[in-house]
Amino acid sequence: MADVDKQSGHFLEYAFNPRSIAVVGASDHPFSFGYHFLRHLIDYGFKGDIYPVNPQRESVQNMKAYHNLLDVPGDIDLVICCVPTERVLSLLEQCPLKHVKILHLFTARLGETGRPQAIDMEKQIQTRAAELGIRIVGPNCMGIYSPAAGIAFGYGFPLEAGKIGAVFQSGGAATLLIQNGWLQGLRFSKVVSYGNAMDIGENELLDYFTMDESTKIIAAYFEGVRDGRRFLSSLKQAADRKPVIAIKGGSGEAGTRAVSSHTAAIAGSANLWDVAFKQAGVVRAGDIGEMVNLAMLFNWLPPVTGKRIGIMGGGGGKGVISADLAEGAGFNLPTLSDSIREQLKEIVPELWDWLGNPVDFSIWGDNGIKAGEIPRIFNTSPDFDFLIVQISDENPMADDWWVNITRMEVDNTINISKQGMKPVIAVLSSAKPGFHDYENIRWRTISEYRENLMAARVPTFDSISEAVAAMSKFIAYWKTH
Amino acid sequence: MADVDKQSGHFLEYAFNPRSIAVVGASDHPFSFGYHFLRHLIDYGFKGDIYPVNPQRESVQNMKAYHNLLDVPGDIDLVICCVPTERVLSLLEQCPLKHVKILHLFTARLGETGRPQAIDMEKQIQTRAAELGIRIVGPNCMGIYSPAAGIAFGYGFPLEAGKIGAVFQSGGAATLLIQNGWLQGLRFSKVVSYGNAMDIGENELLDYFTMDESTKIIAAYFEGVRDGRRFLSSLKQAADRKPVIAIKGGSGEAGTRAVSSHTAAIAGSANLWDVAFKQAGVVRAGDIGEMVNLAMLFNWLPPVTGKRIGIMGGGGGKGVISADLAEGAGFNLPTLSDSIREQLKEIVPELWDWLGNPVDFSIWGDNGIKAGEIPRIFNTSPDFDFLIVQISDENPMADDWWVNITRMEVDNTINISKQGMKPVIAVLSSAKPGFHDYENIRWRTISEYRENLMAARVPTFDSISEAVAAMSKFIAYWKTH
Repeated sequence: MADVDKQSGHFLEYAFNPRSIAVVGASDHPFSFGYHFLRHLIDYGFKGDIYPVNPQRESVQNMKAYHNLLDVPGDIDLVICCVPTERVLSLLEQCPLKHVKILHLFTARLGETGRPQAIDMEKQIQTRAAELGIRIVGPNCMGIYSPAAGIAFGYGFPLEAGKIGAVFQSGGAATLLIQNGWLQGLRFSKVVSYGNAMDIGENELLDYFTMDESTKIIAAYFEGVRDGRRFLSSLKQAADRKPVIAIKGGSGEAGTRAVSSHTAAIAGSANLWDVAFKQAGVVRAGDIGEMVNLAMLFNWLPPVTGKRIGIMGGGGGKGVISADLAEGAGFNLPTLSDSIREQLKEIVPELWDWLGNPVDFSIWGDNGIKAGEIPRIFNTSPDFDFLIVQISDENPMADDWWVNITRMEVDNTINISKQGMKPVIAVLSSAKPGFHDYENIRWRTISEYRENLMAARVPTFDSISEAVAAMSKFIAYWKTH
Repeated sequence: MADVDKQSGHFLEYAFNPRSIAVVGASDHPFSFGYHFLRHLIDYGFKGDIYPVNPQRESVQNMKAYHNLLDVPGDIDLVICCVPTERVLSLLEQCPLKHVKILHLFTARLGETGRPQAIDMEKQIQTRAAELGIRIVGPNCMGIYSPAAGIAFGYGFPLEAGKIGAVFQSGGAATLLIQNGWLQGLRFSKVVSYGNAMDIGENELLDYFTMDESTKIIAAYFEGVRDGRRFLSSLKQAADRKPVIAIKGGSGEAGTRAVSSHTAAIAGSANLWDVAFKQAGVVRAGDIGEMVNLAMLFNWLPPVTGKRIGIMGGGGGKGVISADLAEGAGFNLPTLSDSIREQLKEIVPELWDWLGNPVDFSIWGDNGIKAGEIPRIFNTSPDFDFLIVQISDENPMADDWWVNITRMEVDNTINISKQGMKPVIAVLSSAKPGFHDYENIRWRTISEYRENLMAARVPTFDSISEAVAAMSKFIAYWKTH
């Protein structure tokens, strides 16, 4: 098995780098997941052998279809199963004959329904798979996204691979992470949605991502664990080696109930999870948005352990609010040193004593063109541990000037970030235009500049409060790692 | 003075509904604010007389220009002054001769610079204006946005008027409120940015907005006050009559310093402001984003005093996270009543016992088309004080199906909201595509649906955490008013 040998030899390589995949329940009907999973293999360019399986069809999506696994000519590393529960047991019996290594059960309506018959069926499947030596991802999950291998479980996922690995019990939450993270410049090594965790669960997955060289940061979403002691050990080992950013789904009453009907997991007490995350040194996120924000920082910034910020840009009110929010989050905004004042005196003699931290770009007037000097001056000061540039997209100029002034600020931010002297992050309004504002030059421009900043590896936040909240956790992490 | 008599007769009508405006320092140069303020009067269709004033020009922006105020043929209600500080005193002397009522000093670099000479100049202007009976907005501010009158201080402000009045010390912060609020469906009665508050300040403005019939909700941004006792009285009177949503800029050390160089205000102790806002019954916001979220609720929802939420939509993981965040914010998610179960049993016999609150739309499978029944069933239940619909924009279908499923959810949300049985709010990802994703069908669709929801007066949030944070403050307000 070439791919597996090339990498680690870990059995999960059969999931992330299989040589061949059969989609059981492959279909031409676009409401069916047997359609989607097959189409994804084609769309994302899976390079191994693809075998659509459907007992009633000679071809599916213009590919030759097989009536069952046994008809498939070659061996099968991974089976994606989209058929109803009652057909899983007979499918299992065929697996050993084709040397199937891993069975991904997209198939759902098992333990998570809470119904005795379904719970019993889940147990039967689990028992038989174990007897046959077939490892199972799922049931009730979206399975594998492995961009380098050309496997995905959703539309519009990036083809390009990155360094974030994700261990997600929920496929919907994983989709949100991939789609929203992508817009913030994140790319993924491998993502797995593992659902009810009948067999392969959080522990083996964490162990795999811990040793996987393509994964530099681990993002995780857990609803429950089967073996607390083993979990704590796997989690700690992962967090000792790589930053782990995790969400615990199901901490309150309603969330716990929702977990039970979602993946049939036992949510566990909120307090135990707090302790586990803390002991392991995990960075905890409250939702996917915060997870994306944190991942941006780990993805692009070097370690930061100091809390002294230099904030530049934005108008007066924005600066004042920023200072309040940053201080409220436990940061310090040092006053400008004599050394900085001396340098300002030279470039803006009429403003040098009036400027502060935050620097209000709106008071520049005709000197706006010199504003680019400020980030450079701040960047050399020993007084700041990191810099935040607020792009002053609220500057009150007409469209063409607005575009130019804002671009100058974006370019200056990218330039000082490239110098690598100090970590730099940016704040730029989120462009969320309504349809009729879609062609509005300002929102188009903000979209373009957001993309430019992120292409230059500058973490870019919608608001100062999101920026300081994420930096706060980022710094806490590096203080203990 | 027709407009003034028609309304309240309050002297501030000369600011918000002047019959004539002179722009002193009117210019053709687009980096100059004498250019912008004049252009805004033209762009927004100010219907009174417009007099560009510039000693060196015969015409500005294709309008006849006057060398000084005295050359202007008629009386002038409002003067917008864009010339440097040293020319303000001589301008003041001309004002009484043209019966000027209000002078808006965009002019800055006065007290806020902290320089003795500039502070002294501010005092001279203040004294002379008082002697001459000329009332001043500013200095160091953007002034007036009065859409019904055709006056604005920025580009792209809505021409349509609404019911939110804004008293803002900072013009940049006011611009953020108008531009971001607009995208969330907010419209304004009148907005004033009053800067250093040399004369007209928070008290008179609050008093005006309290009695102004076109203003139903007051948004405010304060950096400091001149007279604490009077302020508390004006604030309380306003908040007794209308919802007041306020930001206090400058609560920490750096923020206080920033306030001083921004509008020369005395920030005051954070604790005093806490007490003042609490005593007056003001809803406090931390930043403009939160202010917009709160204003959406006051703009569209009836009073809500209960904390029992029914949450519908989104996949399993999203539902679990939503439940956690809602409970964490102090809300209750009642389990489904027997009555609801009975109704579910009829429409989805295979799912009725498995569904919960939150309702996971991803388990519908082929029954998706019936999902519209759920909001209708929830809407009639006495168990919920309000409903949150999470549009399941992460549904894993191909683009065309995705668009249809998501639209169905949006339409269902709008329909139950229109029935007016229960307050309904929506959560829909914020579409913040990068430039290259701009034509992506999914982000275009999200933009369109967001607009549809807001056009139907459904408050729409980017995330469940923003939604429950805003609802929490909204409910706290109605419990005490």
